[in-house]
Amino acid sequence: MITVLGHNGYVGQAYVRFFKSQNIAFQGLSREQCDYTDRAILATYLKNEKPDFLINAAGYTGKPNVDACEDHRSDCLAGNAILPGILQVACQEAGIPWGHVSSGCIFTGLREDGSGFSETDVPNFTFRQNNCSFYSGSKALGEEVLGYEARSEKGQQVWKNRQTEDFYVWRLRIPFNEVDNPRNYLTKLLKYQTLLEAENSLSQLDHFVRATIQCWEKKIPFGTYNVTNPGKITTSEVTALMKQKGITQKEFHFFESEKEFLAKAAKTPRSNCILSTDKILTANIALPPVKDAIAEALDQWKPCP
Amino acid sequence: MITVLGHNGYVGQAYVRFFKSQNIAFQGLSREQCDYTDRAILATYLKNEKPDFLINAAGYTGKPNVDACEDHRSDCLAGNAILPGILQVACQEAGIPWGHVSSGCIFTGLREDGSGFSETDVPNFTFRQNNCSFYSGSKALGEEVLGYEARSEKGQQVWKNRQTEDFYVWRLRIPFNEVDNPRNYLTKLLKYQTLLEAENSLSQLDHFVRATIQCWEKKIPFGTYNVTNPGKITTSEVTALMKQKGITQKEFHFFESEKEFLAKAAKTPRSNCILSTDKILTANIALPPVKDAIAEALDQWKPCP
Repeated sequence: MITVLGHNGYVGQAYVRFFKSQNIAFQGLSREQCDYTDRAILATYLKNEKPDFLINAAGYTGKPNVDACEDHRSDCLAGNAILPGILQVACQEAGIPWGHVSSGCIFTGLREDGSGFSETDVPNFTFRQNNCSFYSGSKALGEEVLGYEARSEKGQQVWKNRQTEDFYVWRLRIPFNEVDNPRNYLTKLLKYQTLLEAENSLSQLDHFVRATIQCWEKKIPFGTYNVTNPGKITTSEVTALMKQKGITQKEFHFFESEKEFLAKAAKTPRSNCILSTDKILTANIALPPVKDAIAEALDQWKPCP
Repeated sequence: MITVLGHNGYVGQAYVRFFKSQNIAFQGLSREQCDYTDRAILATYLKNEKPDFLINAAGYTGKPNVDACEDHRSDCLAGNAILPGILQVACQEAGIPWGHVSSGCIFTGLREDGSGFSETDVPNFTFRQNNCSFYSGSKALGEEVLGYEARSEKGQQVWKNRQTEDFYVWRLRIPFNEVDNPRNYLTKLLKYQTLLEAENSLSQLDHFVRATIQCWEKKIPFGTYNVTNPGKITTSEVTALMKQKGITQKEFHFFESEKEFLAKAAKTPRSNCILSTDKILTANIALPPVKDAIAEALDQWKPCP
């Protein structure tokens, strides 16, 4: 049996769908049922129920978007930075392996050599760089709370856990799939008046869920994995496909610059970045290329009635 | 009646002593009695008990020193960054004025012109500068959670709350008094093998407590106040006084540099800084000069039996 925290959220619901479709026994744990923000209560639950695995899909993302995190800093830190630490201790105590849904949004840009950031690269869109949204800052602190930190090794800074990793950290980025939803990247592109042109790694939500469960099923080594669809895609490539596939007739408008976007449409900077998927692919977990995943989602697009 | 959170801690106990000595009605609230980390539970308590004022002397400082915060990041963030946000909302909801014990340890050094940091200076020893201990980072985040942030005003960066301040933020720094205690700065100097020479602002604990209560009694404007004894003092000035006053015969040793200190005796950087006390003194709250306060504590020194 797998316990899922945050099963009513956008990511958690995808886990629930996946488990139902695969006939995998699971329990979506609500805070009303068991206040998992209390380490002792959670540890007792885990010792009694003995789930085989726990997934943390709970977190604070802000509604309608990350700007809301700027106004709810305490909740944002509690959900994204503190909770992982509580789960870590409770799961360790109860001997339950687990996985944490982190975010690729703790990076900005790409490596100097033009490649995507790997799991050992030090996050560069965090409070430590003082360039980020409160959301990204809180998610990066969540990884720090789990023991990760910038360490100097052979003259290079690497992102490494100072303890033994006995859990997974799965980095999701800008989720989407074929189902219209306010949290879906494709819905956001269709809805927003003006868009920011940027090149990004993205996660098809259901591919993400399948890949993370496979991490556990295949017993690949614990640790951090970028779980995005391989490759990169620009905002305008996605909108061109949307028009080509007849999803919308809308004329898409783009901001002149990130500066204009920040001045006119956003309270806080957004992460736009490319992640390397070499680590998870090398572990034999398959993820379709991002351009194929986007095309497939648009081909099967289910608009809200 | 005044409610005190953290009344069993080093700072909280000083509040309890003060209230008893002044015959001020108070209630030390323990988490067992009322889980004040839960916003709704705290709000209900406040609405029922209707205290005149609430003091947050709860926080996570690490034992025996701040190095411990590096190993307990989740607790450290929960106690120092999240809790202030919970109190803010609950106190607002119940209409209770309150004060938060923050820390001057979110600064390092002194202003370029050689003066101490004022309350509008942007903290420079925080996650945002990536130069700090986890403790200092968490305390600075606590102020951010309360709505403070670096804002650009007339071409200058200032530390300002984006909302109306209806609470006090009192910055304590390296507390001491005449009573030997593992948390007392003077005890630490007597105990440690080798010391770090540095110039600092310090808070005589009982002066701090009296001054903060006076803030509320005198109804001075809400907001942030550096509550340290005016002036500055170096480690070697304190140890010279200790020998002069016959507190110890010990030969004090000092590290060659902060680098040596960090390499040999500490896991994480310490804040050494000078704060300006102009704001609180201008509000007519008296605080004796730091050198007098140190001399007085040593004159009345009560060693542990």
